[in-house]
Amino acid sequence: MQIVREPARMRAVVQAARAAGRRVGFVPTMGALHAGHASLAAAAARSCDDVAVSIFVNPTQFAPHEDFNRYPRSFDADCALLERQGATWVFAPAVEAMYPPGNATRIVVGGPALGFEGAMRPGHFDGVATVVHRLFHAVPADVAFFGAKDWQQTVVVRRMVDDLALPIEIVVCPTVREPDGLAMSSRNAYLSPDDRSRAVALSVGLGRAAELWDSGAGPSAIEAAVRDALAARGIDCDYAAVVDPDSLDKLAAINSETGPAVVLVAGRLGTTRLIDNYLLPRRPAAATPA
Amino acid sequence: MQIVREPARMRAVVQAARAAGRRVGFVPTMGALHAGHASLAAAAARSCDDVAVSIFVNPTQFAPHEDFNRYPRSFDADCALLERQGATWVFAPAVEAMYPPGNATRIVVGGPALGFEGAMRPGHFDGVATVVHRLFHAVPADVAFFGAKDWQQTVVVRRMVDDLALPIEIVVCPTVREPDGLAMSSRNAYLSPDDRSRAVALSVGLGRAAELWDSGAGPSAIEAAVRDALAARGIDCDYAAVVDPDSLDKLAAINSETGPAVVLVAGRLGTTRLIDNYLLPRRPAAATPA
Repeated sequence: MQIVREPARMRAVVQAARAAGRRVGFVPTMGALHAGHASLAAAAARSCDDVAVSIFVNPTQFAPHEDFNRYPRSFDADCALLERQGATWVFAPAVEAMYPPGNATRIVVGGPALGFEGAMRPGHFDGVATVVHRLFHAVPADVAFFGAKDWQQTVVVRRMVDDLALPIEIVVCPTVREPDGLAMSSRNAYLSPDDRSRAVALSVGLGRAAELWDSGAGPSAIEAAVRDALAARGIDCDYAAVVDPDSLDKLAAINSETGPAVVLVAGRLGTTRLIDNYLLPRRPAAATPA
Repeated sequence: MQIVREPARMRAVVQAARAAGRRVGFVPTMGALHAGHASLAAAAARSCDDVAVSIFVNPTQFAPHEDFNRYPRSFDADCALLERQGATWVFAPAVEAMYPPGNATRIVVGGPALGFEGAMRPGHFDGVATVVHRLFHAVPADVAFFGAKDWQQTVVVRRMVDDLALPIEIVVCPTVREPDGLAMSSRNAYLSPDDRSRAVALSVGLGRAAELWDSGAGPSAIEAAVRDALAARGIDCDYAAVVDPDSLDKLAAINSETGPAVVLVAGRLGTTRLIDNYLLPRRPAAATPA
């Protein structure tokens, strides 16, 4: 496994691999890798000949008051994990290499980027879209892998890829969970033991949402159940919403009958924000009254 | 000369030409063509095997109160002019083809896009950058030609092309002027006979700026002279500024000695805004006192 620092070098290496007929997969990360990232690298390794994994804590997706400086960094352990998953290259550029002096162009996605995390974290998805665009240029892979845990992020990235006709396929892999159901996240490391035990309320709420959906409940009953689950463990709920999986719009009447839908939830434990989501499958349309 | 409406078809045609080894030039326009546009098409025809000219009045670069609806449209005359200049294709897409339903991604350039026209017309350069990005995808040419008359626009386009590493060369061609010096512009058609005769004040002011520069004057004397020229003909001056040609920053002390620089000017005659500019060449540094 090779560590590459220079974007131009990374690009040349990937282009050479593809010119030689190899299928290249790409997993963008901010490091502090856990089993969720490992599953992305493993999925890439299964379906591609070569796998590039970027480790880049992108300053432009953090607001000034957010946790850019204290975001966990564990480069050596990350590299060891990626080598075990069969990564070919770790792309770890300097901030100045990704954002050369004088650069002034941002990618701004509206539509599905505006609500939820976009509303809670102004500028966040501009930073995400812009860095992903830059990463896709440095790593011109056949296919990129993202985790479903950041559902809105996957929607925003797909939207940008479609709108700008970027020549890359996007694959979304399932959320990996701790044994008690908590979604894997680098930010779980911030949780005190007490907060860690209460954090399970997010996945408990999503489990209850899935049951209600299966029993025919509508969006407001499901949203209330998720909020209740968080409140029961003293977690402040930023949002709990049942939405269209692609547009993230509120479900229209017909969609709320059949789905599919996704439940998005975000909560705060002290200074730590956690997000999670669950995909509600299409359900049979209610029988028309005779 | 062929008229192409569908972006996918245009892209395929250009790609086929390039695959056959032909050099393709591209001139993006909003129609209402004049001798300035003709000179761009002619420059493209001189240096390329095939020339695509787009005619697309882009709604996203007009503010709601601006002149999108009354912007002059003269498609048949435009096509006749382009055929005379040796264009191969006219690309004239529908608005819905350029902005498919659901699209939500904008390109936002900061830096050199923020002042001058960017400050006077909020959102204008976002619309320009976004449509130029889309046009470059539909017309994947070797080289695109822009007129120096919209100087800030050329700087913004170059900035985007650099920042997003778009695979196209940008060529800027000289401003074409009427016999009395007025820069060619589709918006000149809005001028009443009286306004038309007063409009020459912009180029008169720029001529005075060039003389002052040659005689060693600094930015503030030059800016004052341009403002005076406009005021003498009763034109409201939006801005008159001597700036760095690439960053559009105010000239630093050293630069204001030697240049190069560009004088930007914008004025209003009734409801019509006109802009113009003039490139001030590098001048010898003042002799160091012995």
